[in-house]
Amino acid sequence: MVLVHGWAAAASSWGDVGADRLRTIAVDLRGHGDSGRPVDGYRDSETWAGDIAAVLGCVGAPAVLVGWSYGGLVITDYLRHHGTAGVAGIVLVGAITEIGRGHPGGHVGPAMRAALPAALSEDADVAVPALLELTRRMTATPMAGAMLQSALSAPLRVPPSVRAAMFQRDVDSAELLRSIDVPTLLIHGTADAVVDPRATEYAAGLIGASDTRWYEDIGHMPFLECVEDFTADLVTFAQSVATTKAGS
Amino acid sequence: MVLVHGWAAAASSWGDVGADRLRTIAVDLRGHGDSGRPVDGYRDSETWAGDIAAVLGCVGAPAVLVGWSYGGLVITDYLRHHGTAGVAGIVLVGAITEIGRGHPGGHVGPAMRAALPAALSEDADVAVPALLELTRRMTATPMAGAMLQSALSAPLRVPPSVRAAMFQRDVDSAELLRSIDVPTLLIHGTADAVVDPRATEYAAGLIGASDTRWYEDIGHMPFLECVEDFTADLVTFAQSVATTKAGS
Repeated sequence: MVLVHGWAAAASSWGDVGADRLRTIAVDLRGHGDSGRPVDGYRDSETWAGDIAAVLGCVGAPAVLVGWSYGGLVITDYLRHHGTAGVAGIVLVGAITEIGRGHPGGHVGPAMRAALPAALSEDADVAVPALLELTRRMTATPMAGAMLQSALSAPLRVPPSVRAAMFQRDVDSAELLRSIDVPTLLIHGTADAVVDPRATEYAAGLIGASDTRWYEDIGHMPFLECVEDFTADLVTFAQSVATTKAGS
Repeated sequence: MVLVHGWAAAASSWGDVGADRLRTIAVDLRGHGDSGRPVDGYRDSETWAGDIAAVLGCVGAPAVLVGWSYGGLVITDYLRHHGTAGVAGIVLVGAITEIGRGHPGGHVGPAMRAALPAALSEDADVAVPALLELTRRMTATPMAGAMLQSALSAPLRVPPSVRAAMFQRDVDSAELLRSIDVPTLLIHGTADAVVDPRATEYAAGLIGASDTRWYEDIGHMPFLECVEDFTADLVTFAQSVATTKAGS
């Protein structure tokens, strides 16, 4: 399973998900975590697609792509340019699949709306409080203070220009979502204040072979708030995908 | 050259120092950056010494140890337990060599005093503003906002318990500093608000074969504020050490 994190997050955001039960490869997207900080490419579907293709090229075997938040959009970027040939299945977690005004697949929640545009500012006195508040609202049950501080480090490591560029896109994925022909699992916390559950409802209505799991009273980071349930759902999905392949 | 960063910093704090002109290996100390987060060892001279010994074991050849800020204290930890046998030279940058009340080698400046104890708090609302202000005061000339935000991520990645434990030490190094028998370069910005220049004056008075370079109007991060001068001084020092060895 290849884990694709969200906007201004990092591979480390996934915590211990799947530990000992799944072979997971969590990537740092360009501009994030320990990855490079190229000046450009953040607005460009083909660049994101190429980055994921490079990772899948290293992984070798058909992989399950797991996209969290903006990572869902990056997965649609990949599918748009490379199709589902190397993809065994797709899991979208609190994910968007579109972005820009009027695209229902990019419906964000009140915590994200409150954070913008301050969270994109070059001015630390503007950006830091906005990012702290956004990070705090990532979970429905408050994180411990030490965890909150650690989580805040992820967006701060992403240059403000990169944070801003990632929003400067306009993507419609209706046709693409309809064309997805691999098993897809959609997961969304009902208390997600960062990405609106309607983004997942939208994707569920368009993707053919999809199951949707709603996590009651869970926020934007189910792999943190209910890591055991989340891991169990990933394991079940991985097994079902393997069975489908064996039977086909 | 092995670069040992300071309290709540990271290997990445060194930026581009020495690029293309020196072979530098910047470590992430335990609890910092991408290194592990063991529960214990942060108060213990022998543990720090062992960590540096492990790095030097990988490096192989006698190395120049470069300690910034608390990294200077970690180098004294190493010397206390392993001596100078594998050490070609020492560079201390805005460094402390002692810690605890009444030890002049641990004299901190007003920015650090102002940040404590808030910067050690588990409460993000207490720690984050204190760490932001401390980071801001790391340089005499203000950092750009994007750099400031990025720099703030380093202390946030260090668990508050680790930040606190590193201060819970009482170390006198007078005898150890007198015993240093390898070339030593001391560098300190005259406008350093985090570690008091008196900490370097103290070390200079005790270490036999030491040169001291004062950087006028430079703060606590000369490798950021005047990276070319800093790198040039490291290169000159490395060459002099190599010459001494060749002639001995």
